[in-house]
Amino acid sequence: MSTLEDRIRRIEDREAMHERLLAYYVACDTCSDVDGIVDCFTEDANFDLSGLGIAAMRGHAEIRDFFTGVFRDMAHHAHFITNFRLSRQEGDEAIGHAYVIGMGKAHAGADVLVHANLELGFVRTDAGWKLASFVEGAQMPLPESIGEVHGHRQRA
Amino acid sequence: MSTLEDRIRRIEDREAMHERLLAYYVACDTCSDVDGIVDCFTEDANFDLSGLGIAAMRGHAEIRDFFTGVFRDMAHHAHFITNFRLSRQEGDEAIGHAYVIGMGKAHAGADVLVHANLELGFVRTDAGWKLASFVEGAQMPLPESIGEVHGHRQRA
Amino acid sequence: MSTLEDRIRRIEDREAMHERLLAYYVACDTCSDVDGIVDCFTEDANFDLSGLGIAAMRGHAEIRDFFTGVFRDMAHHAHFITNFRLSRQEGDEAIGHAYVIGMGKAHAGADVLVHANLELGFVRTDAGWKLASFVEGAQMPLPESIGEVHGHRQRA
Repeated sequence: MSTLEDRIRRIEDREAMHERLLAYYVACDTCSDVDGIVDCFTEDANFDLSGLGIAAMRGHAEIRDFFTGVFRDMAHHAHFITNFRLSRQEGDEAIGHAYVIGMGKAHAGADVLVHANLELGFVRTDAGWKLASFVEGAQMPLPESIGEVHGHRQRA
Repeated sequence: MSTLEDRIRRIEDREAMHERLLAYYVACDTCSDVDGIVDCFTEDANFDLSGLGIAAMRGHAEIRDFFTGVFRDMAHHAHFITNFRLSRQEGDEAIGHAYVIGMGKAHAGADVLVHANLELGFVRTDAGWKLASFVEGAQMPLPESIGEVHGHRQRA
Repeated sequence: MSTLEDRIRRIEDREAMHERLLAYYVACDTCSDVDGIVDCFTEDANFDLSGLGIAAMRGHAEIRDFFTGVFRDMAHHAHFITNFRLSRQEGDEAIGHAYVIGMGKAHAGADVLVHANLELGFVRTDAGWKLASFVEGAQMPLPESIGEVHGHRQRA
């Protein structure tokens, strides 16, 4: 039987993981805060948007490069996170899931709208819970503009 | 005055109810997991989508039949749950509310998009909190495609 | 080190603030419950929709007047709240943030769809946490219909 302390800790942990995910998206939505994005991930995090047609990345440097390019192109971003839940938590590791409605508008004018699901690996670090794995997949068919907006940098 | 144990229990209960609702929608969004859907409801649950123009149902068998038909037709589903809250909790029963943005694409090509509200009756069972009542209503006017996608089975 | 009581209280406070925000939007979405809206705010609350092109307001009377006009015009409202988090909580005051997908349909037929961010000041009162400050800004470019639907009353 869990102690009261254990039970409170579990609730706090869950909230901290949810807030880390929100912090990532809030940084995305500034269209400028690359440091804020990188800070949400462990040094060697798996960052996998291959479900959106974008090559999988690993670690801070690759994530930083990707968003530096994204932020050069995008004028507006908005990501609405719903359906957050954990499927497993053991000690300092957990698996979470969420949905996201992601939208953006490029300086060049293209609009993008994505309805995606997330599978998230969290680990507890000295700086709180961070994302060690972030896998995004399409929950609804992707618009053609996703390639135009986010894909071309990697295909060039 | 509530004990700490009571207060933690209340928070855990609320989270468990929210997660049961999410589990229902995650099963919906597989477009295949009828067992996962039925498992979220009590044996004789009230499942009422009459606000969407679909006849009210009761119990596992009717819910199972309905989703067997839905899943035959639908290629994609995505349901985004927001605004979850409880208006009442007494012992092993509670009333909850939420909003949902529900979207789907049929194999035949039709798209559906619904902005709905939910009134939910929860009961605590040996297998955790389950839905004893699920009433969905339109929060915004319905698209005509709702009948085309979900309604025809019941009208035939 | 916080006591268990402190930690539970913090979780309960956060939930109460979130629910106050939801209560505000649920009242909005009735298209009739002006009393329910006003009750979510402190007497002299700052209510600032200037980011949506609407003049900032202060206090119950101005909020009441605004929504009396809105509700005369609008046939349907739906607001989907996501990304709620607190950036600061000290004693009886807190700063919160959220996103909202807001949509409406006027009796005259115009549709409006807004993707907005919220900055929220909460204070603890004898009647629970209330909104002392509500600042809404556009997260994505606004549709032209926002002026048609919500702006004309103030420009006349």
